[in-house]
Amino acid sequence: MAASRKVYVAGSRPGIRVPVREITLSGGQPPVRLYDTSGPATDPDARLDVKRGLPPLRLGWIRERGDVEELAGPTSAYRRLREEDPALGGVRFASVRRPLRARPGHRVSQLHYARRGELTPEMEFVALREGIAPERVRDEIARGRAILPANVNHPETEPMIIGRSFLVKINANIGNSAVASSIEEEVEKMTWATRWGADTVMDLSTGKNIHETREWILRNSPVPIGTVPIYQALEKVGGKAEELTWEIYRDTLLEQAEQGVDYFTIHAGVLLRYVPLTARRVTGIVSRGGSIMAKWCLAHHQESFLYTHFREICEIMAAYDVAFSLGDGLRPGCQADANDEAQFAELETLGELTTVAWEHDAQVMIEGPGHVPMHLIKENVDRQLAVCHEAPFYTLGPLVTDVAPGYDHITSAIGAAMIGWLGTAMLCYVTPKEHLGLPNRKDVKDGVIAYKIAAHAADLAKGHPRAREWDDALSRARFEFRWADQFDLSLDPETARAFHDETLPAEGAKLAHFCSMCGPHFCSMKITQEVRDYAATAGVADDAAALARGLRDKAEEFRKTGGEVYRPA
Amino acid sequence: MAASRKVYVAGSRPGIRVPVREITLSGGQPPVRLYDTSGPATDPDARLDVKRGLPPLRLGWIRERGDVEELAGPTSAYRRLREEDPALGGVRFASVRRPLRARPGHRVSQLHYARRGELTPEMEFVALREGIAPERVRDEIARGRAILPANVNHPETEPMIIGRSFLVKINANIGNSAVASSIEEEVEKMTWATRWGADTVMDLSTGKNIHETREWILRNSPVPIGTVPIYQALEKVGGKAEELTWEIYRDTLLEQAEQGVDYFTIHAGVLLRYVPLTARRVTGIVSRGGSIMAKWCLAHHQESFLYTHFREICEIMAAYDVAFSLGDGLRPGCQADANDEAQFAELETLGELTTVAWEHDAQVMIEGPGHVPMHLIKENVDRQLAVCHEAPFYTLGPLVTDVAPGYDHITSAIGAAMIGWLGTAMLCYVTPKEHLGLPNRKDVKDGVIAYKIAAHAADLAKGHPRAREWDDALSRARFEFRWADQFDLSLDPETARAFHDETLPAEGAKLAHFCSMCGPHFCSMKITQEVRDYAATAGVADDAAALARGLRDKAEEFRKTGGEVYRPA
Repeated sequence: MAASRKVYVAGSRPGIRVPVREITLSGGQPPVRLYDTSGPATDPDARLDVKRGLPPLRLGWIRERGDVEELAGPTSAYRRLREEDPALGGVRFASVRRPLRARPGHRVSQLHYARRGELTPEMEFVALREGIAPERVRDEIARGRAILPANVNHPETEPMIIGRSFLVKINANIGNSAVASSIEEEVEKMTWATRWGADTVMDLSTGKNIHETREWILRNSPVPIGTVPIYQALEKVGGKAEELTWEIYRDTLLEQAEQGVDYFTIHAGVLLRYVPLTARRVTGIVSRGGSIMAKWCLAHHQESFLYTHFREICEIMAAYDVAFSLGDGLRPGCQADANDEAQFAELETLGELTTVAWEHDAQVMIEGPGHVPMHLIKENVDRQLAVCHEAPFYTLGPLVTDVAPGYDHITSAIGAAMIGWLGTAMLCYVTPKEHLGLPNRKDVKDGVIAYKIAAHAADLAKGHPRAREWDDALSRARFEFRWADQFDLSLDPETARAFHDETLPAEGAKLAHFCSMCGPHFCSMKITQEVRDYAATAGVADDAAALARGLRDKAEEFRKTGGEVYRPA
Repeated sequence: MAASRKVYVAGSRPGIRVPVREITLSGGQPPVRLYDTSGPATDPDARLDVKRGLPPLRLGWIRERGDVEELAGPTSAYRRLREEDPALGGVRFASVRRPLRARPGHRVSQLHYARRGELTPEMEFVALREGIAPERVRDEIARGRAILPANVNHPETEPMIIGRSFLVKINANIGNSAVASSIEEEVEKMTWATRWGADTVMDLSTGKNIHETREWILRNSPVPIGTVPIYQALEKVGGKAEELTWEIYRDTLLEQAEQGVDYFTIHAGVLLRYVPLTARRVTGIVSRGGSIMAKWCLAHHQESFLYTHFREICEIMAAYDVAFSLGDGLRPGCQADANDEAQFAELETLGELTTVAWEHDAQVMIEGPGHVPMHLIKENVDRQLAVCHEAPFYTLGPLVTDVAPGYDHITSAIGAAMIGWLGTAMLCYVTPKEHLGLPNRKDVKDGVIAYKIAAHAADLAKGHPRAREWDDALSRARFEFRWADQFDLSLDPETARAFHDETLPAEGAKLAHFCSMCGPHFCSMKITQEVRDYAATAGVADDAAALARGLRDKAEEFRKTGGEVYRPA
C-alpha cells in the first residue's frame, strides 16, 4: 500500500496519539483517513521485537490514577507452577512485568471512572478515534451502553470502544487445539488479523501451552484480547467437565486477569432448568462453553459455580478491569433452533446478571447467536436490548442458512451486516473453515474482510457520521478512472489490483479511461463526465434549469459534429 | 458428488420429467431432493454433443399448440449476412432449426395462455419443480406476478418461473468483450454456471462473433438465456450510440428472438428529461444500456426509439414469447446515488410500460439496483411492487458498500439476500471481479455460490414450504457426526470436503465423533446426544416432564460412574 501511511492525531496530552491510516489521492482530492487497528506493527518508525512485546502505551495513565498496586508475584497458583517449570523455558515469554491490581477498596474499571464523571485518557483516545465528543463517550460507558475493554495488565492496547453509538466492531477468533497449531502461528494470526482490521481478538486455545501462548499474544497485541476461561480450566481437569470446581476456575480467572486479558466470556446463564429445553432441538447445545456448563449442571444436579459465585467473579473483574462477555451457552446451532425457548430463557438470566455486574462497576457485553434466518434477526436485537438494559450486543454472525459449509464467512456476513445495522455493537467473525476445521492465515483474512464489509455496511445503514466518506471517495475515484486511487482506497488493495491486472496487466491500463468489462469502445462512466465537462466549459451554472439548457446545446453540438465523443484511450 | 444422482419426477404426460438432484444419506435418513438447474449435462444417461446441442425438450409442446409457423428463413437481414459469410464457417453452429414465430393474429406467450385459463406443459413442469399447485402457477403468470421465460425458438429449456411466490432465482452474467474471451470459454462458463445453480444466464457479449457465440450458448443451455440487444446493435454501428436507429435495433430483436433468447433487457424508461437528474450524482449513469440510450437522447434531443416504438417491440415479444426485462438504465452506481430522483423517475416510466406490455400479452419483469445501503433497500421493493403493478423484480445485488472491490460477491450477496427476502424474484449475481475485470471460471463459481446462499437465505426468511428441509437435513447430519452426509448436502460438496481434509485428512476422521475445532477431548455436539440417548434407553417418553426426570437420573449416574462420557473416537 504505497499510497497509504500511518499518521497520528494528537490529543490533549503528549501520550494521546490516535493512529489513522491516511491515503493520499491523485486528481487534487484531499487525503482520506481510515480507522486503523494494526497498531505499531505498521508504523515504519516503530522498532519492534516480538520477544519484547509492544510498548506499554497506557502504563503511565494507569499508574497515575493511583488506584492500583503492583503485586509481589502472581496470585494464581497455576501460573506460579508454570513459571517454576524449567521445561517451559523454551516457550516462555521472557520479560514479564509484575501484575497490577486495584488497591483494596478500589475499583479500576472504565465504568467506575465514567460513573464518577472522570474522563480518562482512554476515553479521550476513543473519542478522537471515533470522531465523537469525549463527554458522549463517557456517558455511554457510564450508562452501560458501551464498554471500553482495558485491563490494567494489558497497557499495550490502543483504546477502543464497543457500543451501538459507535462504529461497529469485529472480533477475530484464533487459538490452537489439541489437533493443530503452534505459538508462533497464533501470534502471527493475531498480528495478521489486526493488520486487516480486527478490533479485538479472542484466543480460544485448547491445546498445549495455553498460558504461554496467551502471554505472547497479549504482549504483542494492540487490540483487546478476549478468552473463554472455562476452556483452560477444563484442560486443567483433564477434560472432565464434572470435575471442574470454583477454586480451579477462580485461579484461572486470576491467572488470565493478571496476564492482561481484556474480556472474559462467561456462560453464567446456563441454568440447570434450561438444559431440558434443548432436548428437542435439531442440534442441541452447540456452544462449547455452554455444553461444558450443561454437563457440569447435570453431573452435580445444581446450578453452576459461574452462577452461584457470580458476585465474587464481579469483584475480580472490577479489580483488573476485565469486561464481562456474558456467553450465550444455549445459542441456536441451526436455523431450526433459532429464537427458541432455551435461547431466550438464558437471555433473561443474562439480563439479571448484567444488573449484578453493574452493581460492582464491572463492564458488560452480551453474546448472541449463531444461526438465525433473516426474518428472526430483529427479534434477537430487540429482546437483547430490552432484557439486558441496553448493554452492548456481541453476536457470532449469525449464519442465515446452514447449507453452505466452506462459505460460512458469507452466510454469516449477511446476518452480521443486518444485526449490526439493527444495533449489535460487535460482530464475531466466522471464517470459511467454520464447522470444518481450524482457520489458517488465508481463512483469517477472508473472515476479517467479510466482517469489515458487514460492519461498514452496518455503519452506513446506521448513518454513522463519517462512514460514507470512504464509499464516496472510492466511488469518485471509480467514476474519474483514477484506478490507483480506487485500489488504494479498497478494503484489500492488493486483491483489487491483482484482479484488475488479470485482464489488463499493463501499467498503462491503470491510467486508461476504460476497463476490461466494456473495453475501450464504450464505457458507461464516460457519458456523465462528458455532459458535466461540457456544462463546465460552457460556463453553465450548476442548477437543473441551466443543465437542461446545457444538454440542449450539447444535443445540437452532437448533431453537428457527428458525436466523436467516445475515444479509445 | 458420489452420493448424489439425477432423478426425474414424472408429470401427467410422458414428456414432463422434472429433474432433481437426489442425495442419499446414511443413518437411516430419507434422501433429500434438491432443485437442479444443471440440465442433461449431469445426467449420465444423456448422450451429449456440444456441436449438436441439447435435445429440444419443449418442441412437441410448442408445435402441438398449433399457433406457430415455421419460417422459410430468418427475418433478420443481419443474420442472413452472417449465414452467407464463408469466413464464419469455422465459428458457426452447424445444425440450425428453422425459426418459429406466432402465426398471424396469434400470440404465443405463456401470459397469453395463462390469461385464457390454459395450463401449459411448461406450467405443469414448473409446478412440479416448485412443489406448488399448477393452478397457482397459472394464476400468478396470468396476474403478471410471475414470468415463465420460454421463447418458442429455445425448446432446449427446462421450464422455470420467476416470481415472488416461488423460489428466489439467480442469474449469472457471462459474455466476451473486445478485450478478452472466446466462444468456447463462454459456452463453458454457461455450463459451469448452471452446474452450480444459475437459474438463467445472460450473454452480455460485446466482442467478436456475438451472433455465433449466442447460437452456441442457446443450443446448449438448459436454462433461459437473456441478452441486452442494444449491446449488439451498438456494435453494428461501430460503437457510435447516436447512429443507432430503430431499424437496426428492430433487426437485432428479430435476429435474437429467432435464435431463441428468452428475455431481453430493454432500457425504454430512459427518457430525455431524466438525464439531467443524473448530473449531480457521484457516479452518474453506470448502466451501460442506460448510458447508450442517454447518449442517443442527447444527440437527437428526443425520446429514444425504445420508448417511441415500444408497442412494436411488444408485438415482437409476444410473437416469439420473449419476456421483457425492463432495464434500469438510471440505477445508482454508488451508495451516495441510491434511491434518488433519477432512479425513481425511471421506475415510474417502467410501471407505465409494464401496462402497455401486458396489453400485448408480453411477459414483464423489472430490473433494479445496483448499489444501495441496507436501510434504503426496502423502499426499492415497496416502490417497485406498487409502481409496476407487482411485476417480478430482478435486481443486481445490491451492493451495500462501495469500499470492497475484489469482494463484491460478498458486498452484494448481503443486499441480495435482504432484497430477495423482501420480495425480489430474481437476483443477478455479482462476481469478485465486478468493477475490475471479466470473470473467469473461478469467479463465475464464486458468484453463483454467493448468490445461491443469498437466494436460499431469502427462501428461508420468506418461509417457502420446502426451503428449510435442506438446512434441517444438513444440521442433523452435523449433529450426528455424519460427515459424509454433511459434505454431500453442502452447496459445494467438494470445497466442504477439501476444507475438512486440510486439518484432518484421514478418511477415518470422516467417521469421527469430533472435529478439528475442539479436538477429540471435548465436543459441544456430544452432550445433547448423550442426554437424548440416555432418555431413549431408559424408556423415558419424549415430553418435558419425563425428560427432566431422565436428566435427574442421569445426574446420579454421572456422579456414580465418574462421568466417562466423552471418549475419543
